[in-house]
Amino acid sequence: MEKIKKIAVLTSGGDSPGMNAAIRSVVRTCAFYKIASVGIYRGYQGMIEGDFINLNARSVNNIINKGGTILKSARSTEFRTEEGRRKAYKHLKENEIDALVVIGGDGSFTGGVVFNQEFNFPIVGIPGTIDNDIYGTTHTLGFDTALNTAVEAIDKIRDTASSHNRLFFVEVMGRDAGFIALNAGVGAGAEEILIPEEDLGLDRMLDSLKASRKSGKSSSIVVVAEGDKTGKNVFELADYVEKNLPEYDVRVSVLGHMQRGGSPSCFDRVLASRLGVKAVELLLEGKTNLMVGLVNNKIKPTDLEKAIKGHHKIDTELLRVSDIMST
Amino acid sequence: MEKIKKIAVLTSGGDSPGMNAAIRSVVRTCAFYKIASVGIYRGYQGMIEGDFINLNARSVNNIINKGGTILKSARSTEFRTEEGRRKAYKHLKENEIDALVVIGGDGSFTGGVVFNQEFNFPIVGIPGTIDNDIYGTTHTLGFDTALNTAVEAIDKIRDTASSHNRLFFVEVMGRDAGFIALNAGVGAGAEEILIPEEDLGLDRMLDSLKASRKSGKSSSIVVVAEGDKTGKNVFELADYVEKNLPEYDVRVSVLGHMQRGGSPSCFDRVLASRLGVKAVELLLEGKTNLMVGLVNNKIKPTDLEKAIKGHHKIDTELLRVSDIMST
Amino acid sequence: MEKIKKIAVLTSGGDSPGMNAAIRSVVRTCAFYKIASVGIYRGYQGMIEGDFINLNARSVNNIINKGGTILKSARSTEFRTEEGRRKAYKHLKENEIDALVVIGGDGSFTGGVVFNQEFNFPIVGIPGTIDNDIYGTTHTLGFDTALNTAVEAIDKIRDTASSHNRLFFVEVMGRDAGFIALNAGVGAGAEEILIPEEDLGLDRMLDSLKASRKSGKSSSIVVVAEGDKTGKNVFELADYVEKNLPEYDVRVSVLGHMQRGGSPSCFDRVLASRLGVKAVELLLEGKTNLMVGLVNNKIKPTDLEKAIKGHHKIDTELLRVSDIMST
Amino acid sequence: MEKIKKIAVLTSGGDSPGMNAAIRSVVRTCAFYKIASVGIYRGYQGMIEGDFINLNARSVNNIINKGGTILKSARSTEFRTEEGRRKAYKHLKENEIDALVVIGGDGSFTGGVVFNQEFNFPIVGIPGTIDNDIYGTTHTLGFDTALNTAVEAIDKIRDTASSHNRLFFVEVMGRDAGFIALNAGVGAGAEEILIPEEDLGLDRMLDSLKASRKSGKSSSIVVVAEGDKTGKNVFELADYVEKNLPEYDVRVSVLGHMQRGGSPSCFDRVLASRLGVKAVELLLEGKTNLMVGLVNNKIKPTDLEKAIKGHHKIDTELLRVSDIMST
Repeated sequence: MEKIKKIAVLTSGGDSPGMNAAIRSVVRTCAFYKIASVGIYRGYQGMIEGDFINLNARSVNNIINKGGTILKSARSTEFRTEEGRRKAYKHLKENEIDALVVIGGDGSFTGGVVFNQEFNFPIVGIPGTIDNDIYGTTHTLGFDTALNTAVEAIDKIRDTASSHNRLFFVEVMGRDAGFIALNAGVGAGAEEILIPEEDLGLDRMLDSLKASRKSGKSSSIVVVAEGDKTGKNVFELADYVEKNLPEYDVRVSVLGHMQRGGSPSCFDRVLASRLGVKAVELLLEGKTNLMVGLVNNKIKPTDLEKAIKGHHKIDTELLRVSDIMST
Repeated sequence: MEKIKKIAVLTSGGDSPGMNAAIRSVVRTCAFYKIASVGIYRGYQGMIEGDFINLNARSVNNIINKGGTILKSARSTEFRTEEGRRKAYKHLKENEIDALVVIGGDGSFTGGVVFNQEFNFPIVGIPGTIDNDIYGTTHTLGFDTALNTAVEAIDKIRDTASSHNRLFFVEVMGRDAGFIALNAGVGAGAEEILIPEEDLGLDRMLDSLKASRKSGKSSSIVVVAEGDKTGKNVFELADYVEKNLPEYDVRVSVLGHMQRGGSPSCFDRVLASRLGVKAVELLLEGKTNLMVGLVNNKIKPTDLEKAIKGHHKIDTELLRVSDIMST
Repeated sequence: MEKIKKIAVLTSGGDSPGMNAAIRSVVRTCAFYKIASVGIYRGYQGMIEGDFINLNARSVNNIINKGGTILKSARSTEFRTEEGRRKAYKHLKENEIDALVVIGGDGSFTGGVVFNQEFNFPIVGIPGTIDNDIYGTTHTLGFDTALNTAVEAIDKIRDTASSHNRLFFVEVMGRDAGFIALNAGVGAGAEEILIPEEDLGLDRMLDSLKASRKSGKSSSIVVVAEGDKTGKNVFELADYVEKNLPEYDVRVSVLGHMQRGGSPSCFDRVLASRLGVKAVELLLEGKTNLMVGLVNNKIKPTDLEKAIKGHHKIDTELLRVSDIMST
Repeated sequence: MEKIKKIAVLTSGGDSPGMNAAIRSVVRTCAFYKIASVGIYRGYQGMIEGDFINLNARSVNNIINKGGTILKSARSTEFRTEEGRRKAYKHLKENEIDALVVIGGDGSFTGGVVFNQEFNFPIVGIPGTIDNDIYGTTHTLGFDTALNTAVEAIDKIRDTASSHNRLFFVEVMGRDAGFIALNAGVGAGAEEILIPEEDLGLDRMLDSLKASRKSGKSSSIVVVAEGDKTGKNVFELADYVEKNLPEYDVRVSVLGHMQRGGSPSCFDRVLASRLGVKAVELLLEGKTNLMVGLVNNKIKPTDLEKAIKGHHKIDTELLRVSDIMST
């Protein structure tokens, strides 16, 4: 293998807080090792279109605390075609790029693996998504920030819920994974938490809400993941409870896309900085097809394919804690 | 008129940040003038039920920075009946309460005026609502905080909108009044603002969004008040734009009840403190049927009936500023 | 007078949150009226050095919510010399700049007035300082944000003060003016507030603290402006109290420069947007030597010289409110 | 051993965000297992004075998001005497308390161990301190929140530093441990970080600052732990740099006690909930003299004596990351 002299970085898929901090880390680490760095705009689509920008240590000043991604993100259907990927490869070669850091989630890594197989192009992935649903890391980039955003919003909802003795259903992000719902639910002191991983049954929820009211609680919050297992969406759940527990004054709040934005937490900034360093160093060591992740508080590599196929299981112990907390 | 020796305070209608600071101010001002104070739970309903609590200067420690209302709020249909009001009056008399401070909005003041007419009971109102739709004050209690909450949420949405070159429709509170939409829209740098007071026409919005895209803006935010004049809700608006401007990737976010909660801003805490002092002092001077409000940065009384019937007009100059800003 | 075709904008003196929103407003208003705009770096010093940058509507994307100033700020001793100002004028002429918007405080306006007198160059000022000590506006740009920053910090200090039954002396900014101390003090529920405008006497403070402890308060906060009239700094005050009231466990916190930074509040962003529009429109109408300010909630011009010489008096009514609140 | 029927909880030493969430968790877990719970005010001092309060599941409503500790904290010299501890034991017995949960740091645990040895009284500790300097847990309660507080404050300072091309020395808490300085420094993008664990030498700092300026950075932040190894305090460091690098305009900011307060982050709330459950469950299992901590993302017990004597080492890998990041 030849020596790596220039590394490109892109962000792909849904954006998450900390992506800019990771870009900064990749670029600064390149500068530290005296190799060049290039930013690719709009993920794989920008790679296909050759939408590149040369970066240096100063290009990434003052972005560590910014939400979103200065490189923009996009989903690319064209990159799913061989022709699209060939165009992308051509642009990389023309720009003398030797390796690629992909910041994104499952889908982005899958594209990376295919690309690597076809062109033998060195790739390392950094797990950037608020959903925390990636195997090989206890924390994805942006997860911690999204939790704080969700919890701060639910705290505000609790203020008004308590003032009116109301029951709120609050939907948080997580189509296939309940990490945000479970952690933000416990953090916000939710009375009930509904997640895609477990069907606790609607009756159980009704019983719990009845008990909660009887115990003297003045307000209740039920945190629901988008992809809740009950098969009902948050509005249907609210209707269901309103019909069955008429003593409750029910409201719904969908937190939505604000969970993806905002200035990253210290945790996510530090994590991003560490992941970026490791990603570049692995490439410089000649490694490829790896994802860098946080495992037992250390930065460790995982095979990209494992990261894609593996399943990051939710800690059901936390469900038990949630149960006890809503006593 | 006899000397006032005990004043009751209640919060009524939708809660707003700063209500606790106003309760604290009423109670501390009573203590300062060496008269007793009583809190009434759940607004007029608690008055009907005699749900009272004696308060003193220490009862309101450490609440100035808390959202919601420690006295709870509620809407009372029973208070609309003469019988309900008679029960309420009986409880006031039994508790030797001489005067009442009502913290709430239009509806709460209307109840207060009727009650005063029937029982000649001294009442002063403090305008507490995030909607800012009350005549006789430039700022209602909670409006400033709600603006900051909305703007911080839209800032986060902007992060992700920019990363994906998306158009977001963001619904903020304000069924009959566009104060939140207009101010939060200008504060968040929204490309378009739709409010109940003006029908700018859907074509105009399409033109503006087309121009915005052409000018090189990567993302767009349209802030919509709940009661927008176009008659379409935020989801219908999004559909309409998606059909007519297929180049846009459109998303919707409804900020919802979080706008009612949260720790009050310094502005709202200072305003609450000033309003509470004035409300008690007016009652001690033997005045009644007044609302205290902020007029040209001074605390001034307005006839409660005027406050109810008057219309707090939106500053259309700010619409013009918004237009210029979205150049 | 010739028609104005190009306007320059600079920020000068201590920075304040909202300066970027004001720059954006000036630039967008120029674009709206189809005239050119130029940014001058580092205030008058950059003017002397010809450190200019052409700006357009897109140059100021996504800065409305950023603290600090993208144009940087500086104090320039050279601008106090005639020669310095002549160099500055030369650069303005070479760049075909017809008028200037100065965002800053007293000192910056004084420089502007002298420059206008010497070269008959049209100038309008925007009051940007957290201190709120400028005549002709009820609120300077950044004041509202600084209050929220201070109050949020003091809320945190209150948490630990309450937990340990401690007395904290908290110093906030304001060398010559007590606006921040007075408003943040009332907003944070401070037991005592010491400001440059009034010498309440040290004995009075001791009495008040004694009374506060006796009344059952578990913690106390004294907010002190940098330029407090007692002549003692915050550490000396703490020592004094510790000696005279040994029952108190005293701590000191100096909030410092964080008060100057941070994302501006909605209030400051809206104010900045309105001030920028008016500043440009006045210049386009051929006006000069004016400052734009907020007067009774409307944007109004004031003679720059008046703004410099006039004194923005503190509202002593608020001192009375503070007194009542610490009952 | 007899069955445990009543558990007491206290907070001791410096308070930290999350202590209330831990109190809530202990109390709710007791309720869940149908045993009684008692709060002890002001740590060991309140134990000596018998300052107890019965708690139930509803006593701890709405405290999960509050900074400080509702049970107050204090340091007790009397508890260091055998007589003091005997008084304390007497009160526990009189109140039929069977076991104790101590939320605090090293010093508090030492007291607990002695007490246990003398009276064979079951004790479990929860590590509550912002300093993160406790062996047996990767994260102490409050550490994560303190990092976010510090980073948000430094972000604000960065705004003004950048606007004026200044160098700021920012002192954060940590008398014996550099955890806050190191993590907040990396999170805030500090150019240099000075901690008690490593003496990097003053010359190295000067070199680094020179290089930083030469590389085109407009502002610099040096984060310094209270107990920095150089032996100079933050003001002396600033003087030293000002003398040796006159091109720098240097300022100092001491973040101080605000780092101890504030609403806990989601991380700290979840951690507190998990630790509280485990602490109670260990006591119910008949265990004693343990501290519960976070080890590889699981809640694990550690011998209290080990927790006291062991040393929680800083991750020097992060120093290397910091170095690379300041390229």
